[in-house]
Amino acid sequence: MRALLQPQAEDFDLAAVLHALGDPVRLELLRRLAADGETTCSPEGMAVPRSTLSNHWRILREAGVTATRVHGKTRLVTLRRDELDARFPHLLGAVLGEFAHPAPAAPAPGPAASAPAASAPAGPA
Amino acid sequence: MRALLQPQAEDFDLAAVLHALGDPVRLELLRRLAADGETTCSPEGMAVPRSTLSNHWRILREAGVTATRVHGKTRLVTLRRDELDARFPHLLGAVLGEFAHPAPAAPAPGPAASAPAASAPAGPA
Repeated sequence: MRALLQPQAEDFDLAAVLHALGDPVRLELLRRLAADGETTCSPEGMAVPRSTLSNHWRILREAGVTATRVHGKTRLVTLRRDELDARFPHLLGAVLGEFAHPAPAAPAPGPAASAPAASAPAGPA
Repeated sequence: MRALLQPQAEDFDLAAVLHALGDPVRLELLRRLAADGETTCSPEGMAVPRSTLSNHWRILREAGVTATRVHGKTRLVTLRRDELDARFPHLLGAVLGEFAHPAPAAPAPGPAASAPAASAPAGPA
């Protein structure tokens, strides 16, 4: 069995972690891992070719975002949340939107039908 | 004067922002902007060719991380901190290490020569 390259937490590199997360497919994988816990490397409902997905998993793993263990013919992936939180406090939480305010009630789109909605200044708190 | 492509805050894309930040040079530019405020697009002491730097600034700007204004022959760059904080709470703070605990005394690497310093319990809050 090939050893899978997985950095030690003390070797985590912020730029590499951000790069790993800076892709829509990898962000979706992150969200699923955060929500579902350990997953196979072929999660359902991802409209991405297996080889592409495999490459995305490699990038996440090599950056230290995920850990992979081999179970028979299956690879199981987990998020290295504790280690990442210790090293880069709040980073994953921010990426996962855990600090976001609940979306403000969408302003009633004015006199509906016709007029284009007035540009609503996104007004957080 | 060419209009510079700068997304509206409501068009910020998390993957694009993370991708923009996922590079050592761009992280360094971010740190300088956060520390120094508005800067020229050729900050001192960056050992990066001007053309490369220009490309890095473009990626930051197009992701919405920075705003550029043209002043005579100079381009001045600022961090769009408020907008990013509103859209992705805590993200920039986490990337800038603002939530990090002070580094604990590094444990002596391996069974060190002499007696390891008594682990100083991290000072009370």
